[in-house]
Amino acid sequence: MPEQLFPYQQLFNFTKTVFQKIGCSEVHAETATKSLLSADLRGIDSHGVARLSGYIRLWEVKRVNATPDIKVIYETPSTAVVDGDSGLGLVIAPFAMQIAIEKAKQVGTGWVSVQNSNHFGIAAHHAMMALQYDMMGIAMTNASPLVAPTFSIDKMLGTNPICVVAPAGSEPPFVADLATTTAANGKLEILQRKNLQTPDGWVQDKDGNPTNDPHALKTGGALLPLGGDREHGSHKGYALGAVVDIFSALLSGANYAPWVPPFPAYVPMPAQQPGKGIGHFLGAMRIDAFRPAVDFKKDMDHWIQGFRACKTIPGEEKVLVPGDPEREYEVVRMKYGIPLLETVVNELNEIAKKFSVTFG
Amino acid sequence: MPEQLFPYQQLFNFTKTVFQKIGCSEVHAETATKSLLSADLRGIDSHGVARLSGYIRLWEVKRVNATPDIKVIYETPSTAVVDGDSGLGLVIAPFAMQIAIEKAKQVGTGWVSVQNSNHFGIAAHHAMMALQYDMMGIAMTNASPLVAPTFSIDKMLGTNPICVVAPAGSEPPFVADLATTTAANGKLEILQRKNLQTPDGWVQDKDGNPTNDPHALKTGGALLPLGGDREHGSHKGYALGAVVDIFSALLSGANYAPWVPPFPAYVPMPAQQPGKGIGHFLGAMRIDAFRPAVDFKKDMDHWIQGFRACKTIPGEEKVLVPGDPEREYEVVRMKYGIPLLETVVNELNEIAKKFSVTFG
Repeated sequence: MPEQLFPYQQLFNFTKTVFQKIGCSEVHAETATKSLLSADLRGIDSHGVARLSGYIRLWEVKRVNATPDIKVIYETPSTAVVDGDSGLGLVIAPFAMQIAIEKAKQVGTGWVSVQNSNHFGIAAHHAMMALQYDMMGIAMTNASPLVAPTFSIDKMLGTNPICVVAPAGSEPPFVADLATTTAANGKLEILQRKNLQTPDGWVQDKDGNPTNDPHALKTGGALLPLGGDREHGSHKGYALGAVVDIFSALLSGANYAPWVPPFPAYVPMPAQQPGKGIGHFLGAMRIDAFRPAVDFKKDMDHWIQGFRACKTIPGEEKVLVPGDPEREYEVVRMKYGIPLLETVVNELNEIAKKFSVTFG
Repeated sequence: MPEQLFPYQQLFNFTKTVFQKIGCSEVHAETATKSLLSADLRGIDSHGVARLSGYIRLWEVKRVNATPDIKVIYETPSTAVVDGDSGLGLVIAPFAMQIAIEKAKQVGTGWVSVQNSNHFGIAAHHAMMALQYDMMGIAMTNASPLVAPTFSIDKMLGTNPICVVAPAGSEPPFVADLATTTAANGKLEILQRKNLQTPDGWVQDKDGNPTNDPHALKTGGALLPLGGDREHGSHKGYALGAVVDIFSALLSGANYAPWVPPFPAYVPMPAQQPGKGIGHFLGAMRIDAFRPAVDFKKDMDHWIQGFRACKTIPGEEKVLVPGDPEREYEVVRMKYGIPLLETVVNELNEIAKKFSVTFG
């Protein structure tokens, strides 16, 4: 499928204008745009501007509130619960992360659970806000149910990502950002477009049997937790996805498990929802609440250099440190532009037309 | 291999006496015994009394200090660093967890990173201390390098477990305790004894090629991160193991990556160690620092019941909730006794002889 390159600034201006057109304040529009496009810059194409039309559709059916009153509804010195007032997760998550950071400044760490939100883009963008303060950052979110727990046919969890970031000294930061499934939904979409089979352990069919059909989710199948099956540790991926759900939704009062609102606006909301919106969890830990940041960062450099120096298995060039691939994408795409599929370009042109905005 | 059943109380009295014989105070001996035997009760046979001889040998070569001065060397309202003074991790981890709990009482959450420790048994034992206070508990530890990162031949990480526990109401608590590898070393030992092949994705050989040889570690091979290989998400298991290392050792000043001290006393210490001993990380989060515990626990019950009610895949009886298998073991073993392999019984008899203590 043909791709076209777009400069970051062009996509930024367009996306920000569109968010303003649906009623976001300029500040919110800018925050949301930064969150969304960080995915495109970092090579996570499934979570970037390709989703702009999805967010718009959620606004159209009134599942996204463009002018939310985001507020702290409960707090202690190291914790808070934020009510996102059905706003864009792209705006609510940075708000919550900033509160975690302020609390970490005061008492060493800050932990914020969020209810009543929507999809927040990529977790790394929010967690990485901590780095400039010499803090570790943590970000998680639950998501609508696509994943079957070990031994289950029913889909009970989202791809529920966990992100943990840590600053280094002369080396770039450590950035681990991972869906708790064997493969993220975006990888499945790539195989669908190319009409290729999935590897074993990625999906099961509607009866719970292993399959290699990349379209399995559309016919009642499910994504599998990291590990794939019991023999390969899927109960661990399932447990990690469950942990994300507990931190993000059970602690905040958001919807959990199969009751999390879907991203596609045409999918009906689950009946008898137990909570409010989607849940996130954001954390910040001041390094010097444990030991001097300069010592920690020296050790991180040593740690990173040790991994980079590993002898590689046959056929592989180098051992990567979490965050390496995304950072390489960012450098290239900031310089040469962000490649968008024709279908995405068409969608953006339609949005442009709808809101009388210039795009291409 | 024949097994023999031993009442918990018999193993408790014996183990406690042995710890006192090597010089532990009565309080420390009791704490260490509870930590160690919690593994036997919960069915994690590789981490229980079968390791008593290993701990003794570490004491004999002066790598374990039986009379440690365990102390907080730095703290803020929500964080602390503990120096374990080379004591038993079985004693140091509960000490650190209690500090995390006290901090959570004060400011909502408490986070303790530990340096200069030794192996701490099973993570769940320490994390579960939080439950009685209506807190979530977190426990992690690094361990000596047995695991090759994705694309690496070199072993750089331990099996680095993550444990997260959360209280429920009428349902038993949620207890997720998982090594960040496809399979824990204990599972490999079972296959070795039975001379069975491992499934794919558990181990690689000394050249980094996939193998099904359960003895691969003894000939220069490595355990693989959860996921097994890149196509099945091993970079995620690797990232999670790395996160545990950073929390446990980089934050505390313990040894990290390939420099973590080995458990077998005959294995020489790594050269040029960058830190002190083994590192742990313990955390406690007061539920009502987020929302009323009664609401959280009601939602947890609902969550748990939802998972238990899932339709199962062909051939499976029920969907489990993290913590179910271990709790079932605990009930049975507390009632009928703990099964020990003949080799373990022989080792315990040798220890009994060495310290002039009654065992069998």
